[in-house]
Amino acid sequence: MDGRCRMTEQVDSIVDISLAAAGRGRISWAATFMPALAAASRDVGTSLSGRRVGVFLTLEPKTANLALALAEAGAAVSVYSSGPHTSDDVAAALAAEAVRVYARSDADSHVDELLLNRFLDDRLEFLIDDGAGLVRYVHTKRRDALTFLAAAAEQTTSGVRPLRVMEDEGALEVPCVAVNDALTKQLFDNVYGTGQSVVMTLLDVTNVQLQGKVVVVVGYGYVGRGISATARAFGARVVVTEVDPVRALQAVHDGYSVSRLETVSPVGDIFFTATGIGYSITADQMRLMKNGAIVAVGGGGPPEVSLTGDVPLVSSDLARDYVRTVPVDAERSVFLIADGESANVTAGEGNSIEVIDLSLAVQLRVLGYLADRHQSMDPGVHEVPPEIDDLVARSALAAHGAEVDDASPMQIEHARSWRRS
Amino acid sequence: MDGRCRMTEQVDSIVDISLAAAGRGRISWAATFMPALAAASRDVGTSLSGRRVGVFLTLEPKTANLALALAEAGAAVSVYSSGPHTSDDVAAALAAEAVRVYARSDADSHVDELLLNRFLDDRLEFLIDDGAGLVRYVHTKRRDALTFLAAAAEQTTSGVRPLRVMEDEGALEVPCVAVNDALTKQLFDNVYGTGQSVVMTLLDVTNVQLQGKVVVVVGYGYVGRGISATARAFGARVVVTEVDPVRALQAVHDGYSVSRLETVSPVGDIFFTATGIGYSITADQMRLMKNGAIVAVGGGGPPEVSLTGDVPLVSSDLARDYVRTVPVDAERSVFLIADGESANVTAGEGNSIEVIDLSLAVQLRVLGYLADRHQSMDPGVHEVPPEIDDLVARSALAAHGAEVDDASPMQIEHARSWRRS
Amino acid sequence: MDGRCRMTEQVDSIVDISLAAAGRGRISWAATFMPALAAASRDVGTSLSGRRVGVFLTLEPKTANLALALAEAGAAVSVYSSGPHTSDDVAAALAAEAVRVYARSDADSHVDELLLNRFLDDRLEFLIDDGAGLVRYVHTKRRDALTFLAAAAEQTTSGVRPLRVMEDEGALEVPCVAVNDALTKQLFDNVYGTGQSVVMTLLDVTNVQLQGKVVVVVGYGYVGRGISATARAFGARVVVTEVDPVRALQAVHDGYSVSRLETVSPVGDIFFTATGIGYSITADQMRLMKNGAIVAVGGGGPPEVSLTGDVPLVSSDLARDYVRTVPVDAERSVFLIADGESANVTAGEGNSIEVIDLSLAVQLRVLGYLADRHQSMDPGVHEVPPEIDDLVARSALAAHGAEVDDASPMQIEHARSWRRS
Amino acid sequence: MDGRCRMTEQVDSIVDISLAAAGRGRISWAATFMPALAAASRDVGTSLSGRRVGVFLTLEPKTANLALALAEAGAAVSVYSSGPHTSDDVAAALAAEAVRVYARSDADSHVDELLLNRFLDDRLEFLIDDGAGLVRYVHTKRRDALTFLAAAAEQTTSGVRPLRVMEDEGALEVPCVAVNDALTKQLFDNVYGTGQSVVMTLLDVTNVQLQGKVVVVVGYGYVGRGISATARAFGARVVVTEVDPVRALQAVHDGYSVSRLETVSPVGDIFFTATGIGYSITADQMRLMKNGAIVAVGGGGPPEVSLTGDVPLVSSDLARDYVRTVPVDAERSVFLIADGESANVTAGEGNSIEVIDLSLAVQLRVLGYLADRHQSMDPGVHEVPPEIDDLVARSALAAHGAEVDDASPMQIEHARSWRRS
Repeated sequence: MDGRCRMTEQVDSIVDISLAAAGRGRISWAATFMPALAAASRDVGTSLSGRRVGVFLTLEPKTANLALALAEAGAAVSVYSSGPHTSDDVAAALAAEAVRVYARSDADSHVDELLLNRFLDDRLEFLIDDGAGLVRYVHTKRRDALTFLAAAAEQTTSGVRPLRVMEDEGALEVPCVAVNDALTKQLFDNVYGTGQSVVMTLLDVTNVQLQGKVVVVVGYGYVGRGISATARAFGARVVVTEVDPVRALQAVHDGYSVSRLETVSPVGDIFFTATGIGYSITADQMRLMKNGAIVAVGGGGPPEVSLTGDVPLVSSDLARDYVRTVPVDAERSVFLIADGESANVTAGEGNSIEVIDLSLAVQLRVLGYLADRHQSMDPGVHEVPPEIDDLVARSALAAHGAEVDDASPMQIEHARSWRRS
Repeated sequence: MDGRCRMTEQVDSIVDISLAAAGRGRISWAATFMPALAAASRDVGTSLSGRRVGVFLTLEPKTANLALALAEAGAAVSVYSSGPHTSDDVAAALAAEAVRVYARSDADSHVDELLLNRFLDDRLEFLIDDGAGLVRYVHTKRRDALTFLAAAAEQTTSGVRPLRVMEDEGALEVPCVAVNDALTKQLFDNVYGTGQSVVMTLLDVTNVQLQGKVVVVVGYGYVGRGISATARAFGARVVVTEVDPVRALQAVHDGYSVSRLETVSPVGDIFFTATGIGYSITADQMRLMKNGAIVAVGGGGPPEVSLTGDVPLVSSDLARDYVRTVPVDAERSVFLIADGESANVTAGEGNSIEVIDLSLAVQLRVLGYLADRHQSMDPGVHEVPPEIDDLVARSALAAHGAEVDDASPMQIEHARSWRRS
Repeated sequence: MDGRCRMTEQVDSIVDISLAAAGRGRISWAATFMPALAAASRDVGTSLSGRRVGVFLTLEPKTANLALALAEAGAAVSVYSSGPHTSDDVAAALAAEAVRVYARSDADSHVDELLLNRFLDDRLEFLIDDGAGLVRYVHTKRRDALTFLAAAAEQTTSGVRPLRVMEDEGALEVPCVAVNDALTKQLFDNVYGTGQSVVMTLLDVTNVQLQGKVVVVVGYGYVGRGISATARAFGARVVVTEVDPVRALQAVHDGYSVSRLETVSPVGDIFFTATGIGYSITADQMRLMKNGAIVAVGGGGPPEVSLTGDVPLVSSDLARDYVRTVPVDAERSVFLIADGESANVTAGEGNSIEVIDLSLAVQLRVLGYLADRHQSMDPGVHEVPPEIDDLVARSALAAHGAEVDDASPMQIEHARSWRRS
Repeated sequence: MDGRCRMTEQVDSIVDISLAAAGRGRISWAATFMPALAAASRDVGTSLSGRRVGVFLTLEPKTANLALALAEAGAAVSVYSSGPHTSDDVAAALAAEAVRVYARSDADSHVDELLLNRFLDDRLEFLIDDGAGLVRYVHTKRRDALTFLAAAAEQTTSGVRPLRVMEDEGALEVPCVAVNDALTKQLFDNVYGTGQSVVMTLLDVTNVQLQGKVVVVVGYGYVGRGISATARAFGARVVVTEVDPVRALQAVHDGYSVSRLETVSPVGDIFFTATGIGYSITADQMRLMKNGAIVAVGGGGPPEVSLTGDVPLVSSDLARDYVRTVPVDAERSVFLIADGESANVTAGEGNSIEVIDLSLAVQLRVLGYLADRHQSMDPGVHEVPPEIDDLVARSALAAHGAEVDDASPMQIEHARSWRRS
């Protein structure tokens, strides 16, 4: 395939517009738990009037509210999402509100690429990206779309990493804001959101308990910490594997066993990866696991867990919805959740509304900021301005009924002085 | 007082050399739990030969092992500590090992300053400082000592803060390494060490329980988080006060109430400050507290809690060892632990041996680094080189029997690529 | 209705036998995590040969395995379940294995009663009961079925309570074993099972987070403790209401706020009942709640939460699947999960396989015991023999790879002596 | 020795009456945190007028308040305590208040027995006993004192056990109330009190941390659960050993490893016993431990941990206060805390004031009850009346500002009915 699709006429961009009412109900439920986005919406006003904004995120009720908020701020909004990450009723509800939607839950990889290209045909000026998927694509296969592009905002750890590689190689041609690195995103969505929802999704799709089980967590970054804490709260004995010695020592102090993956592979009952790096578990490790071990991805999706390896594995039937049997030898099988996709957003409904609210409020405020400032920003990876973190945090605190304190004049004076008291 | 003392001849620099045997026993017990310092000692070798090193830390068995390790690395070591932070048997044991010790537990503030000046007379080239006490003193009252000074290493959050103020004002004349900011210090000593030991000390000196009590934690940095988590583990209901909205929102997500100090003052049973900033609790707040409330400092000592205010308070008798009665009106009193000094190092034995081991291993390695590099370093605040964090973490992991994993070639390759897989 | 139904011919007893394959897959997945039932099955052998056993439990893959194990032990097994508690694929799979199944997910209350009566027509000798539903029914409306009945086993707290009332009133005419009170049931299913799954179900059906929310738990028995601990692990601030002072004091010591329901009704975000007693939350309390409050039942289902009251409430539309809107005045609504049914078994898949495995292993062993002994047992409530608890616990421990220790001869000797050592 | 001592004249019954002022201060501090005892005191009134009551408990500020409350209720109070469990200042303060005190911290076992016999010479009618020490003694060596004895109240698990053995053997000649089994004692003192204070004492006397350590807890009763939870909260990886399979399975579900003691002896860093049974750890297990392992008793004191065994061990010097070195072979030593006495009451200040307040309030109310009813009570072990538990719980709840709810008439009605709703 050459990056363009000739079948444009043959497939509708959404599955069924008549699902709009159902989608609208779910979008509206989510809206009631999204105070930070509502506050951002008030502050952004109509500063996006006439801008063409493309959104590439899992398409579900929460992200739909971002699309609606962008439209309310005056933008012409296009939304793209791949098959496994699309809710058709939500797609229909957005389409009914004059958002251009390119997303079908039944799309295979060919249709996905077709829809992606239609989306990129909208001459988008600003992109909200996930895993740097769009930015990488326009830099390689749709350089014509790059000519319209003013700036992008990236949502995930797994996306910021390749953006920084691109920047180091001099290959990044637009300014990209690392929304993932905003404190109100990283310290919340990754820890309280993903860490919790990945574990809950595994419990949901398997109906097993964690009490009495050995849970192996690969990677002790923000997501890995959240997974570990949730698993322990549910009675698991957690073993962490980690390549960074300081993080490994934190895991020790947090009360977990810390070991090498090859050492612990034969004793683990359940494995979660949370690395954001490909090939964190491959066929080679799966062969070491015991019969019935379960593997799920908490980080950035394939190839974080991969059936490739010195001798690749081939997956077999579903043992239950979202639970794929992977035979590792004549007698033993391992179960892979959601075929190695991020378990929480594929087999579950993703992170909680309130924690996503924070990230999406950052996105909306960043878009407002970019609309204003993008012309003075160089190509490269940019941080979220701290005042955006503060505003998002304050709007969420207000919704929780929590009050921030103020430093007294005496404290401010003391913080500024260094002479011996 | 002019910074020099004329009574030099009248007071011995330690209380009683015959206590050396007792001190030696306690130092030796601590040594068996200090694998990171032992590893650092092996690596540093004799690279400090002939250097004059001054150590200003609470003088107890753990820090004594740092002094001994410095001596073993070839340094001429001088140690100073103030009265409330001195163990006389440890002082004696060090003095018996040819360390120059200036520390008496019975010292009042005049004798403390006399001993400090004797210590500074040793023409010290390198300082290990606490709260920037020495660096501030030599920049103001003993500028003659500044002429010998090549570099300093600072142990605490409360000390790094004024050093940065000095740097901003152009007043800092030597390179200072922010040992406090090393990951193996900050992420461990502050969270697992101080957070835990402050709460334990309060329980020890009062014999009360936390179950059923409202504990107010002022400040939700590393120390505040440790205090909050420990207090909750002991059954307290924790209320956090914080001036930074992102930290406040973290406290909310960690399950704590978040409020303003003035709002929560009348309902708290126990108050801990963990701010590193003066005047975090003053007479004004104490007047709002209920009869019998208890106040302790987990951060940097006075004036973090202070009896000054619009109308100052005057403290009264001890209700129990380390528990000072502070009448706030005719009918009500508040209890202040350790007269507002850091509770854990005054009324308790300080943080655990193993967590202090990490910080002291950083100190020793930083001293080795400074001996090598100080001439190429500008005045100002310098970070600890990351490789020192790695080495310290690896030596501690080895002692815990924990193994760090290695990234596979496939993972390294994947982390480096950005083109669409 | 008179307890008999004349429409017998008009409705099939299950929905669709062709769903059997799907049901079989889910039953088989569950079986791999049910070691205690497997061990019980080996021990019980064929001791139920020819006995007619009726099972009334939520019909899903786990309980299906009990039905199959009873059949394997030689029993003629009949299964009944009401509409909201029935999985049609599981019903079909059992029917295909020669179990008599009376259960349709589409049954309304009339069809339910029709199916119940068909089930009771099977002249059952032994009953596995839930909420004492069958026992109460045969004592009042189907006294003809009572004549065949030799004994029953009761699964829930909410069922043991009325059985004891019946016993006290002299109205209980058969021996009933309080399986719920077995240690391996009560200390596990209620705490680790229901406590956890109710909270998870609420998170699933609402997609909200608990961080920052006030969660009110009504009742601090085994289930209430599990709910409280799970909610706190997820970042909620928990308030407990309880009528028993010792339990209330435990809640205080476990770190929760303890208050009266009417006091806390206006501030709670989410309410869980865990009392096993009707009318624990009624219209009167709901009117005190704030707009958007969510109410779920963790105990025994209606009328634990009830819309009756001094002035009853009327429920409205679904806001989301399983989330019913209940307007409380012109401006405010409360959301009721699963229409007040036990949330975990209605809106979720029930408790984890492994924890239910323990209860069902007790059930199977109790049935074996009853087949042997029922003739020597008086009418009334009987406890599970302690050796059954021990056998079930040992089989589960073996599956977890855990080892029980043995008391040494010296310890046994010491435990037996009282004379001063 | 024959149970009588001829050296009566040679030793004073307390060390130094001039310590009374210091003791009074500590007793008074404790009193402010003992609301349940104060409420009991009001309710008991003067119902003990003229009764001779003997108290045998660790003599420290909390128990001193019980002695004073008994005196205030009109009793003639005698207090006995053994050397390691005596605070001389508290003894002096009580003696100054006309309590007869027989307790010296410097007493060796001969003086202890002498003081015990003086105490028993007081013709005591009621005893408050610890470990059944007094009851066993008067039944064997001081049968003359038994003739005065009307009833006893026992404080500990380790004491109730031998009392039940005595009862089974027909050897118990007086009614004994198992105060230990009161809910407000057992569910609080053992879990929140001892469980927590034993761990804290170990941390205090060693200054080590638990993070990264393997902690072995021998016995998973109430005390063992408290120790395990506290150790985990401090970052330890906990391994439980247990002889009861149901308790072992609870430990598994609570997230702990469960193993046999001999299996885990070589890998544990710290061992706590919490069995109440002698010889739970002996020389045989200690020989399996690694060099530097630490052993502490959380249960009932010697011989719970004992140096006897197939080949006994001999202890050596103190490595630190309360830390005894026990060489196990030429190269390895184990450290024993407080020579195998209950660590918290010997090396620490015992459990928190508030949790002991509950137990002592039960004691005082039980004494009032006994004064009233003892004549109608048969010899044997008696339970604490439930209304005493309720009264004690309610008085503590009031002090915590917690409110108990009331069941509504609708709930009471529903709880009483069994007919199908």
